[in-house]
Amino acid sequence: MNKNSSNIMALAPNTSNKRETVCIFGTGDFGRALGQKMIQSGYSVVYGSRSTQISNLIPKDAEVLGHAEAAQKAAIIIIAIQRQHYNFLTPLAEVLRGKVLVDISNNLKLNQYPESNAEYLAQLLPGSKVVKAFNTVSAWALQSGTLDASRQVFVCGDDVEAKQMVMNIVRALGLTPLDKGSLLAAQEIENYPLQLFPMWKFPIFLSLGLTAFFFFYCLALDVIYTYIYENNNFSFFIAITIPNRVFPVMALILLALVYLPGIFAAIIQLYRGTKYRRFPDWLDKWMLCRKQLGLIALAFATLHVVFTLVTPMRAFVSWRTSKGIISQALNNKTEPLNHTNAWLSDSYLALGILGYFLFVLLGITSLPSVSNNVNWREFRFVQSKLGYLALIFCTAHTLVYGGKWFLSPSAYKWYLPNIYILSLIVPCIVLVIKFVLIIPCVDKPLTQIRQGWERNPKYSE
Amino acid sequence: MNKNSSNIMALAPNTSNKRETVCIFGTGDFGRALGQKMIQSGYSVVYGSRSTQISNLIPKDAEVLGHAEAAQKAAIIIIAIQRQHYNFLTPLAEVLRGKVLVDISNNLKLNQYPESNAEYLAQLLPGSKVVKAFNTVSAWALQSGTLDASRQVFVCGDDVEAKQMVMNIVRALGLTPLDKGSLLAAQEIENYPLQLFPMWKFPIFLSLGLTAFFFFYCLALDVIYTYIYENNNFSFFIAITIPNRVFPVMALILLALVYLPGIFAAIIQLYRGTKYRRFPDWLDKWMLCRKQLGLIALAFATLHVVFTLVTPMRAFVSWRTSKGIISQALNNKTEPLNHTNAWLSDSYLALGILGYFLFVLLGITSLPSVSNNVNWREFRFVQSKLGYLALIFCTAHTLVYGGKWFLSPSAYKWYLPNIYILSLIVPCIVLVIKFVLIIPCVDKPLTQIRQGWERNPKYSE
Amino acid sequence: MNKNSSNIMALAPNTSNKRETVCIFGTGDFGRALGQKMIQSGYSVVYGSRSTQISNLIPKDAEVLGHAEAAQKAAIIIIAIQRQHYNFLTPLAEVLRGKVLVDISNNLKLNQYPESNAEYLAQLLPGSKVVKAFNTVSAWALQSGTLDASRQVFVCGDDVEAKQMVMNIVRALGLTPLDKGSLLAAQEIENYPLQLFPMWKFPIFLSLGLTAFFFFYCLALDVIYTYIYENNNFSFFIAITIPNRVFPVMALILLALVYLPGIFAAIIQLYRGTKYRRFPDWLDKWMLCRKQLGLIALAFATLHVVFTLVTPMRAFVSWRTSKGIISQALNNKTEPLNHTNAWLSDSYLALGILGYFLFVLLGITSLPSVSNNVNWREFRFVQSKLGYLALIFCTAHTLVYGGKWFLSPSAYKWYLPNIYILSLIVPCIVLVIKFVLIIPCVDKPLTQIRQGWERNPKYSE
Repeated sequence: MNKNSSNIMALAPNTSNKRETVCIFGTGDFGRALGQKMIQSGYSVVYGSRSTQISNLIPKDAEVLGHAEAAQKAAIIIIAIQRQHYNFLTPLAEVLRGKVLVDISNNLKLNQYPESNAEYLAQLLPGSKVVKAFNTVSAWALQSGTLDASRQVFVCGDDVEAKQMVMNIVRALGLTPLDKGSLLAAQEIENYPLQLFPMWKFPIFLSLGLTAFFFFYCLALDVIYTYIYENNNFSFFIAITIPNRVFPVMALILLALVYLPGIFAAIIQLYRGTKYRRFPDWLDKWMLCRKQLGLIALAFATLHVVFTLVTPMRAFVSWRTSKGIISQALNNKTEPLNHTNAWLSDSYLALGILGYFLFVLLGITSLPSVSNNVNWREFRFVQSKLGYLALIFCTAHTLVYGGKWFLSPSAYKWYLPNIYILSLIVPCIVLVIKFVLIIPCVDKPLTQIRQGWERNPKYSE
Repeated sequence: MNKNSSNIMALAPNTSNKRETVCIFGTGDFGRALGQKMIQSGYSVVYGSRSTQISNLIPKDAEVLGHAEAAQKAAIIIIAIQRQHYNFLTPLAEVLRGKVLVDISNNLKLNQYPESNAEYLAQLLPGSKVVKAFNTVSAWALQSGTLDASRQVFVCGDDVEAKQMVMNIVRALGLTPLDKGSLLAAQEIENYPLQLFPMWKFPIFLSLGLTAFFFFYCLALDVIYTYIYENNNFSFFIAITIPNRVFPVMALILLALVYLPGIFAAIIQLYRGTKYRRFPDWLDKWMLCRKQLGLIALAFATLHVVFTLVTPMRAFVSWRTSKGIISQALNNKTEPLNHTNAWLSDSYLALGILGYFLFVLLGITSLPSVSNNVNWREFRFVQSKLGYLALIFCTAHTLVYGGKWFLSPSAYKWYLPNIYILSLIVPCIVLVIKFVLIIPCVDKPLTQIRQGWERNPKYSE
Repeated sequence: MNKNSSNIMALAPNTSNKRETVCIFGTGDFGRALGQKMIQSGYSVVYGSRSTQISNLIPKDAEVLGHAEAAQKAAIIIIAIQRQHYNFLTPLAEVLRGKVLVDISNNLKLNQYPESNAEYLAQLLPGSKVVKAFNTVSAWALQSGTLDASRQVFVCGDDVEAKQMVMNIVRALGLTPLDKGSLLAAQEIENYPLQLFPMWKFPIFLSLGLTAFFFFYCLALDVIYTYIYENNNFSFFIAITIPNRVFPVMALILLALVYLPGIFAAIIQLYRGTKYRRFPDWLDKWMLCRKQLGLIALAFATLHVVFTLVTPMRAFVSWRTSKGIISQALNNKTEPLNHTNAWLSDSYLALGILGYFLFVLLGITSLPSVSNNVNWREFRFVQSKLGYLALIFCTAHTLVYGGKWFLSPSAYKWYLPNIYILSLIVPCIVLVIKFVLIIPCVDKPLTQIRQGWERNPKYSE
């Protein structure tokens, strides 16, 4: 419904049912766009402006008056001017007394001022009811009607009735108001549109760094080494072979990194004998980006799956297969089925598929609409139980697949270990420690500590 | 919680805590279903009916009285009668004064009447508080308890308190009320249940038309031509080979069509030198269905991926592979690895996978619950930056794959170009113009225009 | 926004803007965690405790007083004590008169007491305004700040203003309040955190049981029979071959079981000639878990797809392919293309892909955020029309694939039918009866019955 409502309205404005009059201070881009949209939705709009000369940019059904005059015509005044000009409103304090002022401003930087623009406005005009709203909507989106992005408009304010009036306007424009409580939330609301995936930054940079490292590691061992010592040009490995070695390694390491901070937290709590002391900052931050790490790991796992599935379609693989078959045919013999190989190949494929399947389940439950429909107990069950099961399957998949390389000397080109070996370090550590932590004699004190028990109560003084 | 709550309630009605009495006018199907559900949720229900004879269809704990008598027993009256009979309520105006009237009616056609049913009811009975609700729920769903579909009940009305009372009933029935504002929203709410994917119609018809065209084009060139001139019966190409030629072509063209209107809009704005004039209607409509076009393109891309991945399992492909290997074996020679082929095959596979991966990311961010959790800046970043990257990868994938056909004369059967060539026209145009648009000397005036600057302010007079 | 807001707050508490004072009765784990979080969010917290000696566990900015004294300092009192101690509050009734009491308690079992804890509290202290909230949040999550799970806090209460005050606190802590209506909803809210996927239990046990049965059935026929009578050790079939026989069978049967109850319901309604009688209990329950059955079927179908796609990568399959090619090469002949085989193999692959594609579409529309954005008509269209189309495609896929086995005697090892034959029983029954039900002379009375018509009105007396 949301999707279509504004369009219907835009195409067929319901002009028979006039709504109340709204005043807009400021004839800038956003003020005009909002006014236009409001007129389309049936409101009367009056602009307050220094120059009352009617500009051709202003929507033609709107009136333009001086600030004081315009303000008197409406109960709601939208302040579409910049924060640095707010002080010109102080002389109008008497006119604005009791009116609802809607602060729609945004800043250019996070936490640019000590207090939010809306709180600053409320301090300047203590007699008015300030409501923060509309700052997350862009003028361009309002004007073009292409509100593909979030239709949520965050609203906050100290006066419940004023907030209701603003939320009704939000709804009338085809948007969805979301009450964020009192005006204290304004700072947060003003910071919101300035963010660009803040929680994703560290996980993404970490992944890029590790990916680059493993890529060049593989490039050195698989292409350059082969070129120098075996005089084979496998440069085309760059397109599929090497990525498909790096991706699973990244997926496994990142998945293990999702569970590692929980392991650290448990060890710290066991060591301290209490849960009432904060974790070190790095651990806190790490725990907060576990979801992002997990989703990036899932992306790598997905790429690994698809890169693997196209294997039989690669020219190189067809050539290698043909070569093997032809050499058997020319030697006039058929190799018998190697049962160990059949077992190994089928096992690591099956383990990998099951691990990936559980991983995708984890990803689906982390969709906001799904995780909102499960309770804490269910969420823990999925994220903890199924997550560890996925880690176990994926680690076993790698072990079975890469096992034969561990002891083979050909795996140690330039005395460097194969990346399969590197990829197994973190997951194996996580699984071993986790296994120790669920042994009853370790699990029991840990559970007690998490329920509030303290080994040494004086500690926390 | 939503999911289970109504079930629990239905199985174990909480009869100890009686709620208030609700009156229902009309003993039709929906009136009975709603009454039944309300009784299960602890309400007392009294029906207002012309004939007070107790019908066996009416829930047995409900009372049946005359309209006036029934209305006096409750503060909330649900009007479960059809709009054309509303005028019989006018004599009851005195009894209904100050009461909350819940309009639950639906129409048979979109915008059937000039005003919504709820507004018409409010005009007939100006002394009552009319609230629109429940029209999106079906009697069948209420009765069978299988509310698998949306549990959202849109509520609107001019009286806040009346709306709250109705929303409490909605919650008590295990449904989720959604406040849509004043009674002006009733028209929209009444139109809602009549829609069948209105935004999808044009994109789906366009896709079906193009798919049919390309299917017969391929059928002519790949099956009929081969049958006539080469006397080979490849009719089984209809099942996989031809669809897997049409799907990627459709995916690429539709993805390009998602970005083409943005290109047009930029050119129009640059030409006009202002953003303050409406785009032509066709462009407006096109821009509004970009999300749907993109999702259909994703569906085609997905089908292409799966159809491609099953290639090695096809009997025809196994046969062709065997034939090639056997002919080599019989000629007693092994062809050496063709490095160019290895590079080309690996590159187009890798490009295709990466393009598809980005495409799926775009699809995930267009899920309502995900797009509600990103801000405008983040949404633009994903949809614009990642979207163009996906288009570039997919176009490159097609170029590398189909490149060898461009100049080969065998690609021009009946002097018609291969569909790879046709599929590249739109994406290449989009990418070339986009590339021109991001050149600084073009980008700068465009950015200024989008920020509200006008080359020729008189223009808009 | 939700995601980040609490973190920002936790890291940079806004101490300049002090909020109101909140009192917490009880210094247990949850009371302390909640108090800590509130202090971080700018509230003054005062604890009410039997011993006013300041414990080192209590957040250091909080005050600790006797119960009566503490209660007088705040308008909102959070009752963080267990239900069995609620009666100690009765002497404080005078002090607590008119105050907002927030019941945050949980029980250990579903429906442990006849009335909910919150209603019990309201009965003990009729002069206070009881609000239920916070019970779905864990102390651990509050403390560690890792609120990855649902941020929804269900709130209910009879006093609207009291509820608003509590909802403001919920928002200030970075959580999302969800108004569940009056205090009658408390029972439901208290049961919520105790559930572990209640709707999934039956479908999961059913699937596990059937899977085990089919697994051992296949094991007997494909591994044990072959070992005994053909002396071949195919034990490695356990990893991929047998699962990939069981998964599609499970997917098809479960998908048919989704549509079977609808068929039963139609037959029952036709037989009874009315829709106004409840279905048998087993049918009601079955209809309520159709979504879960469908999603499990989708999981099996997905596993089947991936297990199938890795086929060419299996050592056993490569060996078998090589053997076939080498034997042709050694016999110096190339088999011609078998057109029937090419048609069959391409058809069942194409049918399977299309069926799975529709199945995934069904899965996507059952995501809560998607199904909330479609109306009842659209939901019915997708779930019923597309669902049956998926079932038809998948059944046809199985028929084309398994068709050749039906009459072959080798398919009846130990006189047992192949599981392909078993898997087709339920879907074929569903499709045949559905086909009968849409014949106009059957469909018309059924539609009438569903619109409320009764063949024999006396029946329902």
